[in-house]
Amino acid sequence: MSDDFSITRRVQFAETDLAGVLYFANYFRYMEEVEHAFWRSVGLPFVSPEGERKFFWPRVSVSCDYSAPARFEDELTLGFRVTHVGSKSVKYEIEFSRDGQRIATGRVAAVCCEVRDRRFGPMDIPATARSKLLAALQPAPLM
Amino acid sequence: MSDDFSITRRVQFAETDLAGVLYFANYFRYMEEVEHAFWRSVGLPFVSPEGERKFFWPRVSVSCDYSAPARFEDELTLGFRVTHVGSKSVKYEIEFSRDGQRIATGRVAAVCCEVRDRRFGPMDIPATARSKLLAALQPAPLM
Amino acid sequence: MSDDFSITRRVQFAETDLAGVLYFANYFRYMEEVEHAFWRSVGLPFVSPEGERKFFWPRVSVSCDYSAPARFEDELTLGFRVTHVGSKSVKYEIEFSRDGQRIATGRVAAVCCEVRDRRFGPMDIPATARSKLLAALQPAPLM
Amino acid sequence: MSDDFSITRRVQFAETDLAGVLYFANYFRYMEEVEHAFWRSVGLPFVSPEGERKFFWPRVSVSCDYSAPARFEDELTLGFRVTHVGSKSVKYEIEFSRDGQRIATGRVAAVCCEVRDRRFGPMDIPATARSKLLAALQPAPLM
Repeated sequence: MSDDFSITRRVQFAETDLAGVLYFANYFRYMEEVEHAFWRSVGLPFVSPEGERKFFWPRVSVSCDYSAPARFEDELTLGFRVTHVGSKSVKYEIEFSRDGQRIATGRVAAVCCEVRDRRFGPMDIPATARSKLLAALQPAPLM
Repeated sequence: MSDDFSITRRVQFAETDLAGVLYFANYFRYMEEVEHAFWRSVGLPFVSPEGERKFFWPRVSVSCDYSAPARFEDELTLGFRVTHVGSKSVKYEIEFSRDGQRIATGRVAAVCCEVRDRRFGPMDIPATARSKLLAALQPAPLM
Repeated sequence: MSDDFSITRRVQFAETDLAGVLYFANYFRYMEEVEHAFWRSVGLPFVSPEGERKFFWPRVSVSCDYSAPARFEDELTLGFRVTHVGSKSVKYEIEFSRDGQRIATGRVAAVCCEVRDRRFGPMDIPATARSKLLAALQPAPLM
Repeated sequence: MSDDFSITRRVQFAETDLAGVLYFANYFRYMEEVEHAFWRSVGLPFVSPEGERKFFWPRVSVSCDYSAPARFEDELTLGFRVTHVGSKSVKYEIEFSRDGQRIATGRVAAVCCEVRDRRFGPMDIPATARSKLLAALQPAPLM
């Protein structure tokens, strides 16, 4: 667990709703921010050229379980782990915590896709990206 | 299936991302829009006074599976069905389709909560809301 | 005034903030929605092919004055008028009202731009778009 | 100029649009983020209790001028200066720059408001907040 990649993220006013809490859909934006920070931390941009081929990672399935609300100006820790690496796909788990207490858990399944004329189709994960994902792989699920 | 409550929703420019498609987290905003439209259609506001008690529906678990992207100005149909009614909780399923073709499916589990001093705690679903949910209940899952 | 193009738009939960009102930056999204609805109403898409050239309308200057807040589920009327048509640029004014009462006024200045390799540069407004803008021109400012 | 309060802010994927750039309305969210960071830097929360009275700062007028687009993962510097302090109101100017080059300028006029029963009305800026604003005042406009 101590090996998870993580960032901290402060809840902004614009991200709250009239219930006074972080709007539930915005957790998915946070999930993507830590994912992109992970890619930057290993020196690979999220939207990557691979020789002639440009690829990125459309989501195929995402979920989030909420156990406590987050409020304006809360400083959250977003823990990020790679839980699965397939030939064309990857799975992540993101733990949201505040003061050491988990408040939400997110899951993302994404597919490596080539972009051509604004259309995209699945492709094998390029070797450089693959090795970074495998190095970060922690298959045991969070509990 | 023909009995699902539904609305149509056009993809706005602000909701796209640099990949040229509806940003994945925005599907959750759409899910909530059809849910709120459902509540309006049965004459019950989403943030409701119940005698002295004010209640609303925080999400405890949400998910979305994507099978095809949506693009700027696409007109999507959002089909909404109640799939479970508990004493304090409810589950919904939302089908996103375009030209009769499903492109995504979302699921939401929410808990009826009382609001007091900006804190909220679970409460039994009030009778009026409960009867509307039961009338819309279609427990068989979408396939 | 009666000739303004307009749409109605309901304030969504996701668009509110913890002050319980429509978040101020979201007015700019509404301004763009009525602008795009205008382009659809005259049969011209916002992101347009013009022969071989693809163009769209980046904003160069925008503003909004607020006189009263909007709240969740309010149904707003967005009145849209073209206030200036230059050779490469256009100006709009958008009036936000509720129950016939103005609550905000927005202004947008945009430039017609050609898109090439994800870069864009100003171009003369194509004739078809120009004639639609001139037909909608109401140079007298709202007061 | 060297005395401006500033933060850096990276453009996130969710904040881009299909034109591949930071969506124009999101600049206003950035403006508010640096404003809130300013309040934190002087030890005063944005939504403040003042004795018995709770107050915050609804916007009455905002604007933004854009001179160059910002793109995904750009690291922007947001310079913040107080340009006017009235008895109940305040004005800010926010400079967006990248690599020392200005790309946009925003302006915000806000009014100090008391919150009562989810309604708000103007009030005199409390003394503590006022002294912090005056200390940061740089009335000469950016040019």
